[in-house]
Parts: sequence; C-alpha cells; structure tokens
Amino acid sequence: MALKLNCDLGESFGSWTMGMDSAVMPHIDQANIACGFHAGDPLVMQKTLTLAKAHGVSIGAHPGYPDLVGFGRRSVKASDAEIQALMLYQIAALDGMAASMGLSLEYVKPHGALYNDMMADTAVRKSIMQAVASYHRPIVLMLQGTPEAQQHRAEAAQLGLNLWFEAFADRCYADDGKLLSRTQEGAVHNKEKMLAQVIQLANTGTVTSVSGHTLNLHADTLCVHGDNIAGVESIEEIRRLISGNNA
Amino acid sequence: MALKLNCDLGESFGSWTMGMDSAVMPHIDQANIACGFHAGDPLVMQKTLTLAKAHGVSIGAHPGYPDLVGFGRRSVKASDAEIQALMLYQIAALDGMAASMGLSLEYVKPHGALYNDMMADTAVRKSIMQAVASYHRPIVLMLQGTPEAQQHRAEAAQLGLNLWFEAFADRCYADDGKLLSRTQEGAVHNKEKMLAQVIQLANTGTVTSVSGHTLNLHADTLCVHGDNIAGVESIEEIRRLISGNNA
Amino acid sequence: MALKLNCDLGESFGSWTMGMDSAVMPHIDQANIACGFHAGDPLVMQKTLTLAKAHGVSIGAHPGYPDLVGFGRRSVKASDAEIQALMLYQIAALDGMAASMGLSLEYVKPHGALYNDMMADTAVRKSIMQAVASYHRPIVLMLQGTPEAQQHRAEAAQLGLNLWFEAFADRCYADDGKLLSRTQEGAVHNKEKMLAQVIQLANTGTVTSVSGHTLNLHADTLCVHGDNIAGVESIEEIRRLISGNNA
Amino acid sequence: MALKLNCDLGESFGSWTMGMDSAVMPHIDQANIACGFHAGDPLVMQKTLTLAKAHGVSIGAHPGYPDLVGFGRRSVKASDAEIQALMLYQIAALDGMAASMGLSLEYVKPHGALYNDMMADTAVRKSIMQAVASYHRPIVLMLQGTPEAQQHRAEAAQLGLNLWFEAFADRCYADDGKLLSRTQEGAVHNKEKMLAQVIQLANTGTVTSVSGHTLNLHADTLCVHGDNIAGVESIEEIRRLISGNNA
Repeated sequence: MALKLNCDLGESFGSWTMGMDSAVMPHIDQANIACGFHAGDPLVMQKTLTLAKAHGVSIGAHPGYPDLVGFGRRSVKASDAEIQALMLYQIAALDGMAASMGLSLEYVKPHGALYNDMMADTAVRKSIMQAVASYHRPIVLMLQGTPEAQQHRAEAAQLGLNLWFEAFADRCYADDGKLLSRTQEGAVHNKEKMLAQVIQLANTGTVTSVSGHTLNLHADTLCVHGDNIAGVESIEEIRRLISGNNA
Repeated sequence: MALKLNCDLGESFGSWTMGMDSAVMPHIDQANIACGFHAGDPLVMQKTLTLAKAHGVSIGAHPGYPDLVGFGRRSVKASDAEIQALMLYQIAALDGMAASMGLSLEYVKPHGALYNDMMADTAVRKSIMQAVASYHRPIVLMLQGTPEAQQHRAEAAQLGLNLWFEAFADRCYADDGKLLSRTQEGAVHNKEKMLAQVIQLANTGTVTSVSGHTLNLHADTLCVHGDNIAGVESIEEIRRLISGNNA
Repeated sequence: MALKLNCDLGESFGSWTMGMDSAVMPHIDQANIACGFHAGDPLVMQKTLTLAKAHGVSIGAHPGYPDLVGFGRRSVKASDAEIQALMLYQIAALDGMAASMGLSLEYVKPHGALYNDMMADTAVRKSIMQAVASYHRPIVLMLQGTPEAQQHRAEAAQLGLNLWFEAFADRCYADDGKLLSRTQEGAVHNKEKMLAQVIQLANTGTVTSVSGHTLNLHADTLCVHGDNIAGVESIEEIRRLISGNNA
Repeated sequence: MALKLNCDLGESFGSWTMGMDSAVMPHIDQANIACGFHAGDPLVMQKTLTLAKAHGVSIGAHPGYPDLVGFGRRSVKASDAEIQALMLYQIAALDGMAASMGLSLEYVKPHGALYNDMMADTAVRKSIMQAVASYHRPIVLMLQGTPEAQQHRAEAAQLGLNLWFEAFADRCYADDGKLLSRTQEGAVHNKEKMLAQVIQLANTGTVTSVSGHTLNLHADTLCVHGDNIAGVESIEEIRRLISGNNA
C-alpha cells in the first residue's frame, strides 16, 4: 500500500481561523478533523467535511482533551472512564455529521496531549483502544510508528482493532526510534532533510536517526502540516514525491 | 397508540447532580437525554444510556443551545446554519454512543429555549426540522401539540420527517391551546388537577382550558418531570393511570 | 477635548490569533480589551495589557456575553441579575490584572451583541449602567453617540455614572442618527468617505447622513478596526488626520 | 491566634447546586469561594459573597484549573505563565466583585488539583506564589501545613508573601506529616477520631499519625466540609470545640 498523507484540519473555532484547509485538502489523503473539544465547532466540522468530500479525502476523527484554551496540548489527568467517554462522544459526533453528508468516517487519530499520552502511557493507550474498539462499527486507530509497533498491534488485536501507523516527515528520529525532543537541536528538519527523509521512507521503509543509524519504520501514512504557506508548499512537494514513487 | 411518558434525563454535569434519574427511569417510556451543550457530559450520557437500557426505555436526543451556565434556558440568536449544525452534532454524539451500547436513538426533542424558539419562531422550527430530516437515518422530532399541529405536520412532511406531539401533565392550557404563561396564576396545576388532566387527555383526547373550554389536543406522549421526590411520585401515579387506561 | 481613537484588542484566544494588536496599539488612545467570555483568555489579557502599557494607551474592559463560539455576536436573553454579574466579573478580572501591572482601568465598552442590546433595549442598558455604577471605584461607560445621548446621560446621571460617546469612522449614518444597517447598500464607507467623515466629525461635530442631511453628533472617541492590514493603514491615516486637527 | 475554620463554598454552577452554603456559613471563619473556572459563576459568586457578608465571614479566592466538567480535580499540565495568569484572573474577578459589595478579599487557597500540584510540585508552587505576590495589594496564600512549612515560608518570604497553614480535621496523617492517601485504609477519620484530632490540634499543636507518633503541626486554620447534612453537623461540633477552647 502506498504511503498516505494525513493532516490535522478543521482546527478553526467560531470566529477564529487556523490552518489553510482549502489549500491543503487537494493534496492529502486523510483529514484528521477536530471534534469540538480542543478545536472545531459544529459549523467548522461541517465545512471541513464538505471540503474533504469535494476532494475525495478520507475522514478521520481527531479527538482531544476538553481544553479549548490550551488547544488540547496540555495533558489532563482523566480517568479511564472519562477518556473512553470523551473519545466516543467526539468520534460519534463527527461520524454522524459525516454520514449525514454521505461520508464515512474511517479512522481516529487522537490530538496533541491525548496523542502523546497514548504513546507514552499504557493505561491511556488502553483506554483509547478500548473506546475505538467499542464503537458500533469498525474504525481504525492511527498512532505513531515506533519500535513498539508490534506490541501495539498485539494490544489492538486483543480488541479486534486495526491500527495505522504514521511517520513524521519533518521530525528527526532519535536512535531509539522515537522522535527527537523538540527541545534538542536538529529536532525539526529543514526542507531538504525533510524531503530526503520522505524519499527514504517511501522507498526503503527506513529513516536515518540523529546519529546516523538506519532504522526500520513501518508507516502507513505520513503526518504533514498545513498551518502556513511554507507548510502547504512542503505538502505539495511531498505529494509529488510520494505520487511519483507510487507511479 | 397509547399515551407515552417522556422525561428530561441525564441533566447532571461533571460533579453536579440534577434529577432523580434512577427513580424516574423505571416509570417512563421515553428518555430525553441531554447531549453536552446545556447539560450532560460524555460520562453522564453513558450512565443515562445504561440506565435507559436496563429499563427498556426509548432514547431521544435532547439538544440545547450551547449555554451551560444558563442551562439552555436562554435564547441564543443563532443563525440557521448554526442551529442545524449544533442539532446534528448533539444528535450524532448521542446516537453513536447509544449505538455503541446496542441502543437505537428514536427521536429528538429540543431543550429549553431551543424548544420554545422552535414553537414560537417559524425560522428556528424550520432549521430544526431541516437538521433532523438531514440526519443519515430516520428519527422523529418531538414537539408540543398545539392548534398548529396540522401546519407543523405539513412543514415536516415536506422534509419527509415524522413528528410526535407532546402534552403537558401539570400545565394549564390557555384558550388558544398554548400553555398558560408561568407568570399567570394557575399556570401550574396542583396534583389533583394534573391527574384529572391526564385522565381526560388519555380518555378523550381533550384538555379543559383555563376558561373552561374543551380543547381537542392530539398527544402521542406526555411530558413529566422528575427533579424531586414529589415529581417522581407524580410520575408513578400518572404511570398507573395511563397503564390502567391502556389495559 | 480632542477626539480619541478606540479599538477592540486582545481578541485572540488560546492558540487562535485575531487582530493585529502590535501594529494597532501605537496609533490608538484607548484599548477595549476582551475579558475572556467571548474572546481573550488570562494570558492574552496580560499580553494585551503589557502592549497597552508600552504605548501608554488607556485601558477599557470589553465584556461580552458568555459565548466563545459565537464570539459574543449573538444576543443571549440574560436576566438583569445575570447581566450585572457577568459585567462585574469581567470588569473586575481585567481591572485586577491591570492594577497588578501598575495600570488603571478607565472605562468599559460592552462587546458585540451586548453592545447592540445596550443601545436597543432599555432594560439591558439599565442593567449595564447599574453594573458599572456599582463597581467599587468610578469607571466610565462608553456607548454609541446617538440622538438619544441626552436621555442616556440622564439615565447615567441618576447612578452617578459618567459616559463617553463614540462615533464610527467607516459606517454610514442613517437619517435618524443611527448606523445604517449593514444589510443596506452603502452601510460601510470606502476609505475616501471614511476619511471625509472623520475630518467632518473632528472639525464640526457633525456627520452627513445617507440622504445628505447634516447631523449633530457629539463624540468623545472614534471606533476603529485593526483586524487586517487595510484596517491598520486606515487607523494610521485617521491618526494623522486627528492629530493634525488637534495640533 | 485561635484556630480558624475554612470551608470551600460557592461551588454551585448555573442551575446546578452543590454544598449547603447557607447552613455552613454561620459556623465558619473563612469562605474559600470558587471563581468560575472549576465551579462558581458570576451570579453564584455574588450570592456567596452576600452570604459571607451577612455572617461576617472572611473571604478567600478559591481558584482552580479551567476544567468545569472535571471540577478542577484533574491536573492540567499548564505552563508557569498560564498558571500565573489563571490565578490572577480568578483572584481579580472575585476581589473586584467583593470590593463592589464593600468586602475585602483576604487570602487565596487554590482548589483541587491545583492545590495538590502546589503541594507536590515546586514549580507549580512557585508559579502560584509568584502570582499571589504580584497581585496589586497584599493577600495571604493558604496552603497545607506540613513538615516543609519552614521551606514554604522561606520561599514565600523571598516574594514578600504571607502564608497561612491549614490542617485537616477528618484526614489521618501519615508518619511523614503528609495526609494518608485516600486509597489507604483509615485515611478518613470517623467522627469520634475527627473530633479528637481537632481537640489535640487546638490544645497542643500536634496530631497523632497513623502509626501513633505525635507530630508537631502548626495550623492557622482547619479545613472543614459542608457538602451534606453530616458535614454541616460536624462543622457545628468542631465550631463548639474550637470556640470553647478559645474562650
């Protein structure tokens, strides 16, 4: 299967605009759509769904912690039951709105701190997997591809849940296969390095770590960012690389 | 069809409790469940759905204006697009959570100021009907039975939407078939008058207005309140009356 | 007293940016700062206060209805007690934060729908005046200058409250001294007409209405908008006109 | 100085009631009043201030994390700047409302997870102390009396901040002078033990730990709870004990 491109969209809220959604949508495969807890509101969700529909882009729910002012970037110490409930609520809200437009939600990718907690904290990941698995029809959970991917697959398999793994185009990988912390130098690639990483990943299924090691990295999809013009231009270039590769 | 009993439930929020849901649920037919905008939160919604399932009670979405502090009782001058979107979001959220528990959402009854605006303002009613009709599977809209019922049916029919009409057990009807304003004396019946009104409605399909006129009133369901012990006791008595009548 | 320039600022929220506050602040006299209910959050408020301090700009509270998603532009049918309480809360929050930075809140200008309701609805205006008058130290209420200004002064005087009246640079006035509705053609001036209106107002205390009548209009301050580059450029030109006029 | 009684009050929100404020207020010395982020709303704050005024009770701000649905009981990973800003905002809002009623805010006691984080995390405590110290007039910070009290006093002294230490009537102390975790047996005293602990504390300035050690514990004030009838009755008994002791 060819590497897909996924991007966080629908992150405006009320009168506040965020992201260049209409510029990004034509170039991506999967739209992670905010569901109202950290960003997005019912109208923004509808507009984003309309845009995804126009471009035939696959739809994913992008649920977050209930923290508008923090944009879902701050970890909230929620209980298992709370996490399951907030996941289901947000998934269901987007799914039903999508279905009412003739669209079908395919996957879920948690947002921000909820995503980070999912990757770092087994209990949070379990709550999230449980929530997605308990949804009334099958949807895929998208999470980061790491050396623990096999373990994550095993956890998901117990719940009958399918996973998609994502890689990051613009982030440097540490030797342990995690992302280099943003506080470290070289954590975010310049454009040249980013494109090289994309090509390597698409062609060989590997990335080169910060110390120069070649790491195997299974990725179903590549996370890209469309917050500004430079980001959109990068997406277009990555799109050409990926599509050329797939041709 | 026998007269059903519907009641607003799931109106707790976080650490705040409202309503005597477990005492009420065994006695009603239809639970109008708050969806998080004026009351209810994802966990409360799950608990209320669990309770409804245990008692075989039919489930309705009870969407409101986004106004927690005002409990959805204050009219918000929202646009057509905003009303449609907030309706769909709340309906979808509850529906998907219900489906994940093996339950099926049957109807929608707007809450508080949104309900009042629906009854008083043609544009708001149209937005609400459009939203419910656009949902990806058929659900019924519950609204107040009034002398305009025929017109409301016609409006709904154009959208392929089914309606259920509700009557109020404890409210005195004005001569025009509307509810007597709460600011007027006699607006809320004492228990004796309430039970008499229920019997009359169930047996003859009429109510007696404040001036003593007999008004035809088609009602599919009767709205009851379970906020306190007296309310719960009234529900139990009404239940006995209705069931006896139906037997 | 020379005509001041006032502008709504601090309307960002969390990760969402709105307005070109740093470009606007050097050119205005009075900053109407959002207080967290329709826009602004504690951090944004602090940053806006810091910016105002750096430019010696006078500070006003810009309280709104509690409606983030609607940006305070939708009327909420709040009670007298609710309006007074939400006014006081927001004024106090900004005032205490300002005082902790060595600044002193001078005035209050309600935002959006709350402002419109204040101008159109006597009961809302009374609630607002009462709230501001009940604050523990004197602050001025800013409202629109209209032919009812004398009546508004009388209402305020009964409460010991001082008023400042504002005019609009870019809005065409109807013959009755109100603003021409935005739904009508010519409601918003082009730049040339806007500058002409400013000069006329500053020099003669009058505006020319849509039908060409000359209307007296007492204005202490002129409302300008800094949402985009064109807006900021207009502010700079108005600043030059006003200052030249005052020189 | 005699031991005071402090209690969390004003924790209702909109249509939801919490706590038996009018039953509690006559028996306490210090009311910790919620400020709208985890509980309380502008109207509730005004009502609570009115009640405090009627009973001559000292007023403290009880700020929390911005988490209504979690009632401020869930830690939110907020930055130093965010914590300082949310503290100042909430303190200022209550202070200005209190001053407008002729009352003077005397102290601040963080709520729930913010309180726990303050006690457990030096960085959070520093942010909180900094915020309170930066307020435009002196207010006292209330925190838990522990064996680290001297260190806390030193931290506060550097900022020119005064502290009040509180003890808990109904909680069993661990041997290290912290509270025994609620997950451990015996963490919460029955009434008899609670009253014994109060007497010991008031008379000797000590508590007996879970293993029977006598621990010195300086306390300026005793935290009591008025959520239910039993709680209110306990407050009345403690009041009698304390007042008898002081007489």
